[in-house]
Amino acid sequence: MSKKINNATIVQNANVYFDGKVNSRTVETADGEIVTLGFMQPGSYEFNTSSTELMTVLNGSMVIKRENDDDWKEFTAGTSFTVAKDSSFQVKVDTFADYSCSYS
Amino acid sequence: MSKKINNATIVQNANVYFDGKVNSRTVETADGEIVTLGFMQPGSYEFNTSSTELMTVLNGSMVIKRENDDDWKEFTAGTSFTVAKDSSFQVKVDTFADYSCSYS
Repeated sequence: MSKKINNATIVQNANVYFDGKVNSRTVETADGEIVTLGFMQPGSYEFNTSSTELMTVLNGSMVIKRENDDDWKEFTAGTSFTVAKDSSFQVKVDTFADYSCSYS
Repeated sequence: MSKKINNATIVQNANVYFDGKVNSRTVETADGEIVTLGFMQPGSYEFNTSSTELMTVLNGSMVIKRENDDDWKEFTAGTSFTVAKDSSFQVKVDTFADYSCSYS
């Protein structure tokens, strides 16, 4: 049974990236934290960060490469990775990737 | 500025349909109503209903045809349509469709 986020505020409209191939919903938790719940379609993407990001794969998988990574690394459901503030990371998705992202 | 749903509970993992081409998040509102916030990629889909559904396009557009419709009808951002309980409807999406669905 999937985790639930209680007493939260959700912005109804999705955030849309790469013509909709990546989209997410912004959630403000009860303690004021921002979390985005996102979904990626098959493809290759690059994202820039303006804060430290903790990405957790909820379902599906993604292969990623951060600026300082020598190799690509795969992350599947239940695994997480961090991306430094003011950096970027590349993502490749084969089937789909359901993910959450929190910021610090 | 997009509408916000306050004091809600969100199921973190997405509902995944058509290999992820359609996915949604389940939200329980403060008064116990279930709303799903979903996103459709380009393609053709058919959905069955087990309750009356009120679909609202938030962004993008979709063309739909319900069982009793003679023709296809386009719905763009801000427009809604209802689908009868225990029926089905076909959907065609050209770019993407961000939508909400409530049940009664």
